[in-house]
Amino acid sequence: MNKDSVPFTKEQLEEIIKTYPTPFHIYDERAIEANVARLYKAFSWMPDFKNYFAVKALPNPSILELLHKLGMGTDVSSLTELMLSKMVGIVGEEIMFTSNQTPAAEYKLAKELGAIINLDDITHIDYLEANVGLPELISFRYNPGAAKDGIAVGIGKPVEAKYGLTEAQMIEAFKIVKSKGVKRFGVHTMLASNEMSEDYFVDTSRLLFELALKINREVGIEIEFVDLGGGIGIPYKPDQKAVNIEYIGEEIRKRYESILSANGLKPKIYMECARLITGAYGYLVTRAVHEKHIYREYIGVDACAANLMRPSMYGAYHHITVMGKENAPKDRVYDVVGSLCENSDKFAINRELPEIAIGDLLVIHDTGAHGHSMGYNYNGKLRSAELLLKPDGTVKQIRRAETAADLFATIVYPA
Amino acid sequence: MNKDSVPFTKEQLEEIIKTYPTPFHIYDERAIEANVARLYKAFSWMPDFKNYFAVKALPNPSILELLHKLGMGTDVSSLTELMLSKMVGIVGEEIMFTSNQTPAAEYKLAKELGAIINLDDITHIDYLEANVGLPELISFRYNPGAAKDGIAVGIGKPVEAKYGLTEAQMIEAFKIVKSKGVKRFGVHTMLASNEMSEDYFVDTSRLLFELALKINREVGIEIEFVDLGGGIGIPYKPDQKAVNIEYIGEEIRKRYESILSANGLKPKIYMECARLITGAYGYLVTRAVHEKHIYREYIGVDACAANLMRPSMYGAYHHITVMGKENAPKDRVYDVVGSLCENSDKFAINRELPEIAIGDLLVIHDTGAHGHSMGYNYNGKLRSAELLLKPDGTVKQIRRAETAADLFATIVYPA
Repeated sequence: MNKDSVPFTKEQLEEIIKTYPTPFHIYDERAIEANVARLYKAFSWMPDFKNYFAVKALPNPSILELLHKLGMGTDVSSLTELMLSKMVGIVGEEIMFTSNQTPAAEYKLAKELGAIINLDDITHIDYLEANVGLPELISFRYNPGAAKDGIAVGIGKPVEAKYGLTEAQMIEAFKIVKSKGVKRFGVHTMLASNEMSEDYFVDTSRLLFELALKINREVGIEIEFVDLGGGIGIPYKPDQKAVNIEYIGEEIRKRYESILSANGLKPKIYMECARLITGAYGYLVTRAVHEKHIYREYIGVDACAANLMRPSMYGAYHHITVMGKENAPKDRVYDVVGSLCENSDKFAINRELPEIAIGDLLVIHDTGAHGHSMGYNYNGKLRSAELLLKPDGTVKQIRRAETAADLFATIVYPA
Repeated sequence: MNKDSVPFTKEQLEEIIKTYPTPFHIYDERAIEANVARLYKAFSWMPDFKNYFAVKALPNPSILELLHKLGMGTDVSSLTELMLSKMVGIVGEEIMFTSNQTPAAEYKLAKELGAIINLDDITHIDYLEANVGLPELISFRYNPGAAKDGIAVGIGKPVEAKYGLTEAQMIEAFKIVKSKGVKRFGVHTMLASNEMSEDYFVDTSRLLFELALKINREVGIEIEFVDLGGGIGIPYKPDQKAVNIEYIGEEIRKRYESILSANGLKPKIYMECARLITGAYGYLVTRAVHEKHIYREYIGVDACAANLMRPSMYGAYHHITVMGKENAPKDRVYDVVGSLCENSDKFAINRELPEIAIGDLLVIHDTGAHGHSMGYNYNGKLRSAELLLKPDGTVKQIRRAETAADLFATIVYPA
């Protein structure tokens, strides 16, 4: 695939900009739909397969509504994410509530909404019981520790991660909740972030399936679902290959059969993919406003890290297409920079690009996950609008741009 | 100084929390005042010395008002920072407008307010002239490139920084604006961030003073001010020594005399310190809500990276005091973590602390600069309130905590 391909022309963008000035994120509904279908097809051997979209990646109700229509639930981790989910009618067991250091108020709302409560720690059993009572269904998040060392990337080594229960605690926790009258049970883990190795996920499924079997044998309960978490990566760089979802689905099926089916167990399979679902189908559209020639060549754009933090925070690569120059030779080398008073506010460093003129539209790729949602207001910068490109070519604004009034809303002055 | 000393007792905090629940930032007005006086004393040899407080560090109008009363102006870099400055009556040449990739609307407001406009690039002369006209006074930001290589830390090597003009461009730029009728001139640089070496700043002053002299000789203009920028660090760690401001002031005086006075020049000296001014006098107050025992020992608190990003973003050390246990032995080792679904959301890693009980109040130090202002809403987390501890011991709320309604304000749903 040509990494410079985008689902709109320069002329279409200029038309959109008459109504919605740059910068903005625009999401491609048609591509998201097709991609969801692909994931569900890869797991079609499991009729109850469900993906709980990790809301933090793209916490916009119009997107959640779209994904819900396509069969997804929400993976939520905070009070406001529970509220967002409810806003679009995603309630009950279509919500997976996976939080950590959770305050009582969040458990309370999760229980009221009938969400699946996935506990991060064994001590939370007592906390949940004391504060809101135990629900009928409980899940626990597993942290394999050294059992997954040397494989994990992304969110760090499991032994250094704040999340989840050890294997011994998993067994103990299920014994406790069983004794307290909980009737239904799930196991969960979430180990990777933007991981590109198919076998990583296959191995995670093995680990969880074996754990589900062990829990069945040692605690005498049947695990109703195994939530494999998310973390499947996307090819941000032109030379990266997309993850083979079909391979993952098929290899997980084999392990499901040999470890679970062969032992008479038949839990549902859940996942929590988000980046995979929307990441590649969002674009940050920005305009070149300045050029600068000092020790390097710079192009200044009207977006900044407030709109997309990943390059500044992680040094992440995001591909850039100069609209109208998709096929021009990439014979210039630029730093493409935002206006933040942080030298890390660079969308590209020493990047080969076609010659850019002031006024050119630049499309920054792969902003559909952890893009707008990670934005901040440092330097008093305002976060941008979000638009949805519909399959019929029309555009809907699904979030307006922030204003100074929004930024100043919490100020108490005079005190 | 004992790093665990704080300007309030546990009992006072518990009283404050009855009105303002945790987490919140609280700033110590008395300490800020004393510290400002110290800086101005160090530069008392220069009657026109002025510090322009970098608003991005602590963009709260009550703080800006306080600093203004103490003789400071504002260093602003965006439209909303200009608006904030105006909100508290800081206008005219009490504003230093230092931006980059600046849009025309920002230059327009800066000129309307009579701010000192400090241009980041030679191309901005034409841009400013075409869009809003040239003001009577113009300053340029200098990027010394390799001339400062091997010394700079913090915001990166000057040759890799997006900011400023080269020396040749500085000379050329002043010639151009002189020919266009500009009457008054300043030079500026900003090279460091949280730099602890006194001599670094002394050397920067030498560089700028020599440049001012060179400009005087080659362009035939008199530089009205030399703005040395900010970047003076503070001792985040207990074993670090505070920067010796008096030494810096005195050494800069010597270079001022030998390079400038000796040649008949007498520009004013400006600085743009912020972290030095307020950084050490802000505290994030949070409560321990959970404990967890897996591969490490964890304490979960009710603050998270949304309230203080520096540990998560930079791996920065922030000292933690457990209230009421200031003198207890630090015989435990904890990761102190927030509730974000990011493993980097850890205020402390493998930190020696006294035994912490659920409910204990933890004070996270040195949050008075780049603390609240760098917060984000990732995971739907809400940014906290800001309080001002007055010299008489009373507390004023100067920013309320964010609500879900604030977070959802920009959502357009249904689209």
